[in-house]
Amino acid sequence: MQYLILFGGKSYEHEISIVSAIALKEKIKDALFVFIDEKRDFYLIDTKKLKSKLFSSRAYKKEPKLELQKSGWVQKGLFGSKTLSFDMVINLVHGGDGEDGKLAGLLDFFEIPYIGPRLEASVISFNKLFTKLYAKEVGCEVLDFQLVRKGEPFTPKFDYPFIIKPLRLGSSIGVSVVHDRSELDYALDVAFEFDDEALIEPFIENIEEFNLAGCKGSDFHFSMIEKVQKEKLLDFDKKYLDFSRSGIQKANIDQNLQNAIREAFIKIYEPLFGGALIRVDFFYHQGKIYINEINPVPGSMANYLFEDFISVLDDLARHLPKERFIPIEYRYINSIQSSKK
Amino acid sequence: MQYLILFGGKSYEHEISIVSAIALKEKIKDALFVFIDEKRDFYLIDTKKLKSKLFSSRAYKKEPKLELQKSGWVQKGLFGSKTLSFDMVINLVHGGDGEDGKLAGLLDFFEIPYIGPRLEASVISFNKLFTKLYAKEVGCEVLDFQLVRKGEPFTPKFDYPFIIKPLRLGSSIGVSVVHDRSELDYALDVAFEFDDEALIEPFIENIEEFNLAGCKGSDFHFSMIEKVQKEKLLDFDKKYLDFSRSGIQKANIDQNLQNAIREAFIKIYEPLFGGALIRVDFFYHQGKIYINEINPVPGSMANYLFEDFISVLDDLARHLPKERFIPIEYRYINSIQSSKK
Repeated sequence: MQYLILFGGKSYEHEISIVSAIALKEKIKDALFVFIDEKRDFYLIDTKKLKSKLFSSRAYKKEPKLELQKSGWVQKGLFGSKTLSFDMVINLVHGGDGEDGKLAGLLDFFEIPYIGPRLEASVISFNKLFTKLYAKEVGCEVLDFQLVRKGEPFTPKFDYPFIIKPLRLGSSIGVSVVHDRSELDYALDVAFEFDDEALIEPFIENIEEFNLAGCKGSDFHFSMIEKVQKEKLLDFDKKYLDFSRSGIQKANIDQNLQNAIREAFIKIYEPLFGGALIRVDFFYHQGKIYINEINPVPGSMANYLFEDFISVLDDLARHLPKERFIPIEYRYINSIQSSKK
Repeated sequence: MQYLILFGGKSYEHEISIVSAIALKEKIKDALFVFIDEKRDFYLIDTKKLKSKLFSSRAYKKEPKLELQKSGWVQKGLFGSKTLSFDMVINLVHGGDGEDGKLAGLLDFFEIPYIGPRLEASVISFNKLFTKLYAKEVGCEVLDFQLVRKGEPFTPKFDYPFIIKPLRLGSSIGVSVVHDRSELDYALDVAFEFDDEALIEPFIENIEEFNLAGCKGSDFHFSMIEKVQKEKLLDFDKKYLDFSRSGIQKANIDQNLQNAIREAFIKIYEPLFGGALIRVDFFYHQGKIYINEINPVPGSMANYLFEDFISVLDDLARHLPKERFIPIEYRYINSIQSSKK
């Protein structure tokens, strides 16, 4: 399978996507890497040059620029243009563009096959309010919440401490734990820097967090369940400074809890997330499992959680959701025209 | 304001979009009309030739073909290529492509300004389950419902008669009223022709239906409230055979009900539908208002419901939601690099 890995994007998580791409270049041999820069221009990046400095120094601009057309990505040269040849895109753009549905819309419209969340899956997982409503609807538990909008009066319905999160970002960006009234305004300001809406959730001391990645190919593939190590709240740097996630701790939990986590994963996944390899982040507290977040483009595709990542990916690639055939036969217009005669 | 009207699309409502475009060419002077055909190729359609037969005869294929690039739509000719000049796209594609979020994703990614639903608004209004969850969340009433999936066992929770609708289509396509058990399997088959999921709702005899269109520009603009004339259930042909909607009946309702309908509209609209002119279809029964459907690209933009359609459109065009500025400064990668030294 010839993969084309799309990374970068106009996103607060642009740099995380670069880190993801660097981590994957060792795992997926012979993939093409296509970078989306801050202007949403496309560049073909030579795997050998794929290092973080290429981007921070802006040296990527000397790499071949690509144009996205209906036929795919086209490289223009002095002696005509060449269309990139590949079987399957992997959407590796985190946050905006990749997880908010823009790339899904673009790739669906151009009928380019891809691994990644479809439109509905993107919108539902990107917006934390929609994630809550969806998770409840499919029979999963979520922590109680309250929506707050910029400029609107707000009285917290929870006791302190609670958490404030921008409604639409991932990677803990703009998230604060608010311990008392004196910290509230600043925390709201921080969240509203990133979004006009924010979500409040109770902060539960010592809540356990488990991550499970997976996808449905010929059948469901599950990763190991990871127990997340937290110092109260992971900040952006701590979460990603460890590129390879070498410090993964497999959750030491009994079979019942494992099964319950997998069952919750399936409820969330099917059918909405078909075509994507996702990581679901769970809370576990007093015997109850809660959906915390759905990551439809997890960091480095959560490859470090799988024993045989490439087989999982290849199987998923062979079982993507298919667009329904929509016949356009002008039966209606023809019937009007014949009735006019 | 130089408008570019996008119509057609790979959609079950492709032909309805053509009808909408024909209705609008009289209303919006000097607009450019760009047609999306069943292969998602773009064609620039001369307004004088914009008649239904141009499409049903496939004669549109002789019109100038356009290529969508980052810069916009490009017309290639013998003597070089020309980029179409316009201020604002109007998304007039009904159903798939236009209302499911594909065009929103495409236009957002290419940063082309447009009137029409954004990504989240598209996904929420296109999927009837998500519409229900959203409407309830913002404090509106909806009819009770049940989700049914193709191939899964199903026991109706409602008494007969009830309605079966494909989860994701508009324009009454695939919708049936099921009067008793003998009609159930066929009605499910019909719905599953269009979607793998369907929604069941109670059928309420003589329920009243009101439509209200509107948008937010410098302030809210509301159309007149229309009382929908129904013969039990409008079918696709009856609903659209009347191109100009000349038989509109203004709802004869008191000020309180009018206000209540407008209040429900505002709850639905803000902030999710910013940038779009939408039509909300309401049910009214025993003194209660229910959200039936949200049409984020209403037929002919519901122009027939407004007294001064063009001023409304122009005001909306001047008040589109803005994308947040996302600085990409490589602070994180730089900090890693300096810590490595």
